[in-house]
Amino acid sequence: MATFLFPQHVIARKRDGAQLTRPEIEAFVKGASDGSWADYQLSALLMAIFLKGMTAQETAVLTDAMMRSGVIADLSAVRMPKADKHSTGGVGDKVSIHLAPMVAACGVAVPMISGRGLGHTGGTVDKLESIPGFRMGLSIAEYSAEIGKIGLSLICQTSELAPADRKLYALRDVTATVECIPLICASILSKKLAEGIDVLVLDVKHGSGAFMKDKARARELAVALTSVAKAMGKPARAVMTAMDEPLGHAIGNAVEVAESMDCLRGRGPRDVMEVTYALGVEMLLLAGAEADAARARSRLERSISSGAALVKFRELLEAQGGDERIIEDPSRLPQAPTRVPIPSSRAGFVTQVDAMGVALAALRLGAGRARAEDRVDHAVGFTSLVKVGDRLAAGDPLCTIHSRGGPEHAEASQMLAKAVVISDAPVAAKPLVGEIIG
Amino acid sequence: MATFLFPQHVIARKRDGAQLTRPEIEAFVKGASDGSWADYQLSALLMAIFLKGMTAQETAVLTDAMMRSGVIADLSAVRMPKADKHSTGGVGDKVSIHLAPMVAACGVAVPMISGRGLGHTGGTVDKLESIPGFRMGLSIAEYSAEIGKIGLSLICQTSELAPADRKLYALRDVTATVECIPLICASILSKKLAEGIDVLVLDVKHGSGAFMKDKARARELAVALTSVAKAMGKPARAVMTAMDEPLGHAIGNAVEVAESMDCLRGRGPRDVMEVTYALGVEMLLLAGAEADAARARSRLERSISSGAALVKFRELLEAQGGDERIIEDPSRLPQAPTRVPIPSSRAGFVTQVDAMGVALAALRLGAGRARAEDRVDHAVGFTSLVKVGDRLAAGDPLCTIHSRGGPEHAEASQMLAKAVVISDAPVAAKPLVGEIIG
Repeated sequence: MATFLFPQHVIARKRDGAQLTRPEIEAFVKGASDGSWADYQLSALLMAIFLKGMTAQETAVLTDAMMRSGVIADLSAVRMPKADKHSTGGVGDKVSIHLAPMVAACGVAVPMISGRGLGHTGGTVDKLESIPGFRMGLSIAEYSAEIGKIGLSLICQTSELAPADRKLYALRDVTATVECIPLICASILSKKLAEGIDVLVLDVKHGSGAFMKDKARARELAVALTSVAKAMGKPARAVMTAMDEPLGHAIGNAVEVAESMDCLRGRGPRDVMEVTYALGVEMLLLAGAEADAARARSRLERSISSGAALVKFRELLEAQGGDERIIEDPSRLPQAPTRVPIPSSRAGFVTQVDAMGVALAALRLGAGRARAEDRVDHAVGFTSLVKVGDRLAAGDPLCTIHSRGGPEHAEASQMLAKAVVISDAPVAAKPLVGEIIG
Repeated sequence: MATFLFPQHVIARKRDGAQLTRPEIEAFVKGASDGSWADYQLSALLMAIFLKGMTAQETAVLTDAMMRSGVIADLSAVRMPKADKHSTGGVGDKVSIHLAPMVAACGVAVPMISGRGLGHTGGTVDKLESIPGFRMGLSIAEYSAEIGKIGLSLICQTSELAPADRKLYALRDVTATVECIPLICASILSKKLAEGIDVLVLDVKHGSGAFMKDKARARELAVALTSVAKAMGKPARAVMTAMDEPLGHAIGNAVEVAESMDCLRGRGPRDVMEVTYALGVEMLLLAGAEADAARARSRLERSISSGAALVKFRELLEAQGGDERIIEDPSRLPQAPTRVPIPSSRAGFVTQVDAMGVALAALRLGAGRARAEDRVDHAVGFTSLVKVGDRLAAGDPLCTIHSRGGPEHAEASQMLAKAVVISDAPVAAKPLVGEIIG
């Protein structure tokens, strides 16, 4: 065993800009897991890491130690290649819900463990939990068995997984140490690499609705994520995507599940499907299921046209107790009592739909969490949201608002209307899917 | 009242290099005092301050807020000018013990509140507490009354004084955020300026036995301390002094009190008196008691030759319950059972007496604290320690060790012998008292 390292000595080394050794990083992670470091020592080192940085080598060691602070799923009995996708988060991003069954239908297993939404809108777990009966709190054993059986499992993070990350994330949130690439990297990858995957595709978003507003910083994050994953022996690729306007026409929880069902039926919005295919292609390529992008794309398209992806989603619902009737009848999903259009005050071209503005309007309705302990209202949100480039007459709907009435309805309507900019002339469309890193 | 400031927003601003506003700094200090900031938030901001710095303006506001977190002694009823001296700490530094009565005997009141030693050797409080019966835990009211009566009081820090500093200092100690000039400045001055003084003289030490090893950094601290004190309306001056070898011949607690008694009797070691006069002169000048340095020096010398300083010290003992007989009979101070010389293994000239090495040897005997909760052994230490420049024959004593025997005796003897370097040729003496700042 290593000799005991005083926390203040490890902190002082990073404070002075040194590269921390494996024993030092392991002492820090152990300290976070077992309480042998005080919270004030953890946060002092987090701030020193924020300001002095970490090398790719240090970040890989940190990720590894955080991953090994909890259980690591053993999917070696699953004979299929195993790929997961992780998004850094965006507004209206329901891609996982239909992409996972599409990829599974193409013969690549998708072991997906997601978090609840911490930002302004719900996460994949919140969205899927709007399906009556759908259980996401599976144990790692149940999750492994399900993947063996249907090649797919979507569950929520358990306390077994990377407990050091849970501790450190909670501290970062209240000590202004969130926006730090090595720490973000270790937080994301320590959980994803504990899933038992072979390869990982990352959707790294930039723009007003993204965690990283700035494209250059997002690209830095993409490089760090893919390098560290590779350093840990897991092939990884990142797709850079724009998050200036929300993805698709639906923003909320149940309404996004319904939109994902549209995607599985071949009626998905153009932008959602563009991102879905870009990510799915990389998953099939990295997993070795297809040798070139064109073939991977056709195979994913066939999973929809053949109905195989929809069948796979039905198997998922069956395995996790969800009401399968929502597939044919989305009105079985939670419904908000008030559903009315928000009219445009003027005619013109939609030149901006500010993703952050829409997210805050959805949050006002109760579709997300202002604080970690808040409950998400699955029924509320927006549908039929206009897209940049749409031409509107005065009075045409900007979207349909789904609410429970009250002052929230009025406020959220105003916020939504403010997020949509209408001008006399159209603007050129910006590319949605950009560079591929790794 | 100011609106509530989220700790994480204040932390983020300093993290990003901004200058904090007065309300932000006040929120931090209030958070430390009343627990409205969590310890992990305090330590994150301390690390951000360590790495991003603070302007003189921010440091003054921090000092002011920390000072006002507790009581501020009101000595306005005392008609004499009031001056204090603060040393950044060195090995064998017993100067306060005899300087305070010397200055008080010259008509300048000395309100002195000291801490216990946190470093390797005891502080002024620990040294004075070796005097049987001497009480240092006086209330601010008792302290003020004593100054009104005899122009002098030496007490230890009470919980009433700058409680925010106590909280922050304890955190800094375990989060590697001690060696930060703005934080050191605010910590020292928030307590000193709460004493009710008019002017402050600082002994800023540099060298192996000093808190600041590096002379340039020590000078930076001296500039910061004097600027901030002046910004808070208190004339201040710093004397830069070397701390490469211990001050005087005695290192410990009771043995240093005995050496201070020698100083009061006009038999003080040359180096101790050189520092004593340099500091005393600045105190008399700043307090306006004398107009030039030569007159101030003569007046201090007269306080000794006339016996007035010794009378003043006797009044101090009487006021605080100390056994006055120690003045005539130092054997009434705690005595260690074993007192033997440590012989030199070779002949030659003493070219180095490493202050830090001597301090660690004294710590091994129990003369200081390895941890805040340790008890100091008042009786142990070293006397008759050689000085740089001394010529020795083989077998001549390096010093007399005062111990309780046991393995500590042997180890401390070895450590002491190692700290003394003897060479064939003498080295030129280095100046002890250097630049005066402010």
